[in-house]
Amino acid sequence: MHARGMDFPPLTPADNAFAARLPQGVLRAVEPRYLEERRGLFHGRAGLVAAPRNTGEVAAIVRAANEARVGVVPYGGGTGLVGGQVMPDGPVPLVLSLERMTAIRGVYPAENVIVAEAGAVLADVQAAAVAEDRLFPLSLGAEGSCRIGGNLSTNAGGVNVLRYGNTRELCLGLEAVLADGSIWHGLKRLRKDNTGYDLRGLLIGAEGTLGVITAAALRLFARPATTGAALFVVQSPAAALDLLARAGGRIGSGISAFELISGQGMRFLEATGCAARVPLDAIPDWAVLIDLGLGPDDDPQAALVGLYEEGAAAGLVLGGVIAQSEAQRAGLWAMREEIPEANKRIGAISSQDISLPLSAIPEFIPAARAAVAQVGEFRINVFGHLGDGNLHFNVFPPEGRARGDYPGEMRARVAEAIYDVVAAFDGSFSAEHGVGRLKVGDLERYGDPAKLAAMRAIKAALDPNGIMNPGAVLRR
Amino acid sequence: MHARGMDFPPLTPADNAFAARLPQGVLRAVEPRYLEERRGLFHGRAGLVAAPRNTGEVAAIVRAANEARVGVVPYGGGTGLVGGQVMPDGPVPLVLSLERMTAIRGVYPAENVIVAEAGAVLADVQAAAVAEDRLFPLSLGAEGSCRIGGNLSTNAGGVNVLRYGNTRELCLGLEAVLADGSIWHGLKRLRKDNTGYDLRGLLIGAEGTLGVITAAALRLFARPATTGAALFVVQSPAAALDLLARAGGRIGSGISAFELISGQGMRFLEATGCAARVPLDAIPDWAVLIDLGLGPDDDPQAALVGLYEEGAAAGLVLGGVIAQSEAQRAGLWAMREEIPEANKRIGAISSQDISLPLSAIPEFIPAARAAVAQVGEFRINVFGHLGDGNLHFNVFPPEGRARGDYPGEMRARVAEAIYDVVAAFDGSFSAEHGVGRLKVGDLERYGDPAKLAAMRAIKAALDPNGIMNPGAVLRR
Repeated sequence: MHARGMDFPPLTPADNAFAARLPQGVLRAVEPRYLEERRGLFHGRAGLVAAPRNTGEVAAIVRAANEARVGVVPYGGGTGLVGGQVMPDGPVPLVLSLERMTAIRGVYPAENVIVAEAGAVLADVQAAAVAEDRLFPLSLGAEGSCRIGGNLSTNAGGVNVLRYGNTRELCLGLEAVLADGSIWHGLKRLRKDNTGYDLRGLLIGAEGTLGVITAAALRLFARPATTGAALFVVQSPAAALDLLARAGGRIGSGISAFELISGQGMRFLEATGCAARVPLDAIPDWAVLIDLGLGPDDDPQAALVGLYEEGAAAGLVLGGVIAQSEAQRAGLWAMREEIPEANKRIGAISSQDISLPLSAIPEFIPAARAAVAQVGEFRINVFGHLGDGNLHFNVFPPEGRARGDYPGEMRARVAEAIYDVVAAFDGSFSAEHGVGRLKVGDLERYGDPAKLAAMRAIKAALDPNGIMNPGAVLRR
Repeated sequence: MHARGMDFPPLTPADNAFAARLPQGVLRAVEPRYLEERRGLFHGRAGLVAAPRNTGEVAAIVRAANEARVGVVPYGGGTGLVGGQVMPDGPVPLVLSLERMTAIRGVYPAENVIVAEAGAVLADVQAAAVAEDRLFPLSLGAEGSCRIGGNLSTNAGGVNVLRYGNTRELCLGLEAVLADGSIWHGLKRLRKDNTGYDLRGLLIGAEGTLGVITAAALRLFARPATTGAALFVVQSPAAALDLLARAGGRIGSGISAFELISGQGMRFLEATGCAARVPLDAIPDWAVLIDLGLGPDDDPQAALVGLYEEGAAAGLVLGGVIAQSEAQRAGLWAMREEIPEANKRIGAISSQDISLPLSAIPEFIPAARAAVAQVGEFRINVFGHLGDGNLHFNVFPPEGRARGDYPGEMRARVAEAIYDVVAAFDGSFSAEHGVGRLKVGDLERYGDPAKLAAMRAIKAALDPNGIMNPGAVLRR
């Protein structure tokens, strides 16, 4: 094994000299699951897979890797959508899986805090909160398999950001192993702690490039005593935003989610035979799914009726349904959650996770449509977390053609057309999925130069040998 | 002028060579107000005071200072309590006052966003939000004179953190000048933006040691349609916490503030002739001030009556008053806000701003009292933002003696006694005031070594010449 500055030596399972320096019993077989990425955009490589049992073992592995200049790719549930969890090129790395560190270290209902290890599956963290009659509000499609360490490393968003914030806002404290193998014991259960730089916020969203998160103290909330949901047909995205503002005035912080759904998305659901039903007589151009969580003395259905009436009187709302039971509410959510599956069955040429200033959205959507039309004839499914200004802007071939008909060059042109419009409206080319390896070039193109320079300086300062998730976020 | 590595040359008003490199018209007279600190713990020095009119001028000043290795002390409203805004020793710095950058650059009510320059006074930001029927929830005693740039740089807390979060959580985007004079244009109005490291969160709370914040995009909220407040006498801090949990279950996110007030604090108010009245027949050992902000169809008074009845039935609440008018609510808050003034009139030996895991507070208070009693005979006034686990733990001489009777050595022993107990309960020695220059030694003693090493590496990476607020947070 030869360390050559920032260059990594190749690492293979036969590299016994390095493996012998790792804690006993941490090595796993290099199974394909560690190397696959669900969209098939990347195929990873790994010389070794290590699955440590505790933070001390994580530290020992990272310290050994740092001394030997071996790259370390932290691996959670493998559900990331930008290739942050797989390293397809460069010197072969060690994959560090958190799958054996799944403990809920403590639940503190009186404090509204839960302490979970990084490998805990998100759904298990949610369930541990429910067992103490509390809510851990992070919720997203992959919650049955993604792990909380990955959610933290990517600052995951999801459907409840409007009310509860992104993962960063849900985290009070962290325990992490830094690139030199030192352990930061920052697992504070404090709401206020102004004792130095925000290392917590920096590691969250750093996608494993500055260290490995091993555990987190996370915020819990009272579970809403009453809930409700409605699907309202709206005149336009502008009408949806007006309705959102009115809902804020009427219902305040009781709005848990406010999702935009396009007619194209509903047609895809029907065309692909997805199980979810659209409970409307005809498919409209636009609809919003509104979810409420209120107090014990409140009446969410009455609140939704009031909002409907105000919206209808103002010409914003054209129809819709209000769930009359928890099962109907679940049905509305099932429809929303199945849109990505329908998209997958149709086969997108380009899937963008973007965000915009809320008031720019009505102008942005037609402008982005027009820009994409300049590249060619496509179908577009725009949907997402309207309350957060977060749209999933997905581009599909016209009927009768398939994704495979479009070369990569065409896909890149579509993405660029969208991103240029996003940039013109002061938006973001990655709202909740992160940069990973997929969007490194986009960050270089659209990112602020002063911020990029600061990021590179921070990376060099905290990981001088460049071992942590090499090539993610910043080019190797 | 001689640059000698990390050493700064002395700078005086006569230093024309350096002054000539600054933008025209930015220099101000070195008035005493730039060098004073309200508790009189520090007296600053300044060779020059510069008050730039725009971000370009801030950049030019910082660039010149970086090239000349002149220290830059950013100055907002001068209300900080830990000496972050005054540099009492070391090479004489330039004071960079944001007082001329006070513009509200835009209010976006449909987005719930306001963009303010760093020199805007907090009360003016609040007022600009109200003018658009919105709430900017950051609220603290100094709001009439502190500036939003200082609030951001110290990650200010205040009375509404329980509901709306610290300043960091209220900020969506920043514009800032980094130590090399480059401008980061990060003034995004986005709720979700996962495009690289959280430079925003890092500059917030860095107390001017990594750069100068020049403007911020801040979150607004719907103004609560109905409000209410009550002062409940409680059995103990444990009873107060139990009541807080019950309030969370009954009222959810409608609780804007939950403040603990001690009998000692109320006795100080009466003894010092403060204007605020305690609206109770007798002064109790403990009370809580609860503030609600609810929707248009809600009844805050009824909610407080319900909470009172539940608390009384459980033996937690022993009496109290519920405000019957906005004037009575303001009266309760005036009482709470005057406690620091009463403390000042009595004269504290030691004033600590600490935080603890919520459930540790009932054990912490007697443990800290006992530790202080080991040092000597004192009166203690514990009060603060109980909902955030944030206590102001202030220690006073017994009746008949004065603060001046106690040497600095004794004060240090009191602080150390408290901090050791705080550390034993996994708390923080600085909850909302920051580190500044006052608590640099405490950070070295109580801070996590891995985090401190990371902070020093970040400081060296982003400010290699050490010009930004030298000696604050980290030792020069």
